[in-house]
Amino acid sequence: MRVVVPVSGSDPKTRLSAVLSPDERREFTEAMLADVVDAVTAAGHEPDVISTAPIDCPVPVTVDDRGLDPLVNDLLASTVTADEDGLAVVMADLPLVTQEGIERLFAPDADVVLAPGLDGGTNAFVSRHPEFRVDYHGASIRDHRRIARDVGAETVEVDSRRLATDIDQSSDLAEVLLHSDGAAADWLADAGFSLSLTDGRVTVSRE
Amino acid sequence: MRVVVPVSGSDPKTRLSAVLSPDERREFTEAMLADVVDAVTAAGHEPDVISTAPIDCPVPVTVDDRGLDPLVNDLLASTVTADEDGLAVVMADLPLVTQEGIERLFAPDADVVLAPGLDGGTNAFVSRHPEFRVDYHGASIRDHRRIARDVGAETVEVDSRRLATDIDQSSDLAEVLLHSDGAAADWLADAGFSLSLTDGRVTVSRE
Repeated sequence: MRVVVPVSGSDPKTRLSAVLSPDERREFTEAMLADVVDAVTAAGHEPDVISTAPIDCPVPVTVDDRGLDPLVNDLLASTVTADEDGLAVVMADLPLVTQEGIERLFAPDADVVLAPGLDGGTNAFVSRHPEFRVDYHGASIRDHRRIARDVGAETVEVDSRRLATDIDQSSDLAEVLLHSDGAAADWLADAGFSLSLTDGRVTVSRE
Repeated sequence: MRVVVPVSGSDPKTRLSAVLSPDERREFTEAMLADVVDAVTAAGHEPDVISTAPIDCPVPVTVDDRGLDPLVNDLLASTVTADEDGLAVVMADLPLVTQEGIERLFAPDADVVLAPGLDGGTNAFVSRHPEFRVDYHGASIRDHRRIARDVGAETVEVDSRRLATDIDQSSDLAEVLLHSDGAAADWLADAGFSLSLTDGRVTVSRE
């Protein structure tokens, strides 16, 4: 099983601009990537990190500036053939993910395994079907269910909060501090972020 | 194992007031409750529904107008003793939950099993430890971890997106339409709600 972790290395995580400077967004992106690489490695796989621009990472990085859809669809076309055992794609902004979450993604013996994100995204998948392709725009989980059905791929979904929690905006940061002790959580703590309660709801504040 | 589903029967889900009338909030609450009752029943358990006021439900309802903390802590004190096999509390606003999610909650043989919600809540738990108590205010998952640790309870957490997704506000409604075909999803569709894309993000709109 080839495991690819695509990451945006050029001006990443723009929706965090309200709370992080450009340099900080890059550092935080690298910390989240390190957490994902750790989880994949702990699960016994060697992740291929593919970034749109050079980025610091604990494993070698391939730079490829194509968009996500053409990149992943080319990988699917070249990797998933009848005699190969599949391709997994795991997003780089899932700092809550653990070895167990990766193992649960890889466990089902189905043609396609989807890990839905919150808000309709697809945060990770495995394909063992040569015709499955991706379309990450909009509510991609619906499109991926449809694409899998259209090509006759047996599909299962992994019910994981940790795989579902992608970090895009400031309101997501509390999840990192609540549920992780990895590199991204350390980075946030070092940058002065901590949990706080506002009107009974959990947010983050910065000292 | 006693399984309790507490629900607010009096003016429920006020944070949905922007999109639902008071009568609609009640009907939607009842539909979500029916989904949770279905999941618990399918998992082979008979749920005790305890509501702060009379509410329509497929199983008998006990009315108890105490707040959530005193209610659940009294149940813990009276139910979880050395010779009983524990108490499970599952919130009523989890329309994505399925039989499998309930089975995963019940599977670990630990003193305390916690199912974190998004935003720091605790959406379901099992206690087999006579001293474990709840405090649902604020970031309750942190408090419940601490309380379990303080009483020496061995604790595990269930990593389930479906158990984590509680429906509180309009931005949560898309999750129901994306990931469920139960009573709450049917109710939303009958009320004219459908998924729509706004700036590439998934929301709901009403006809």
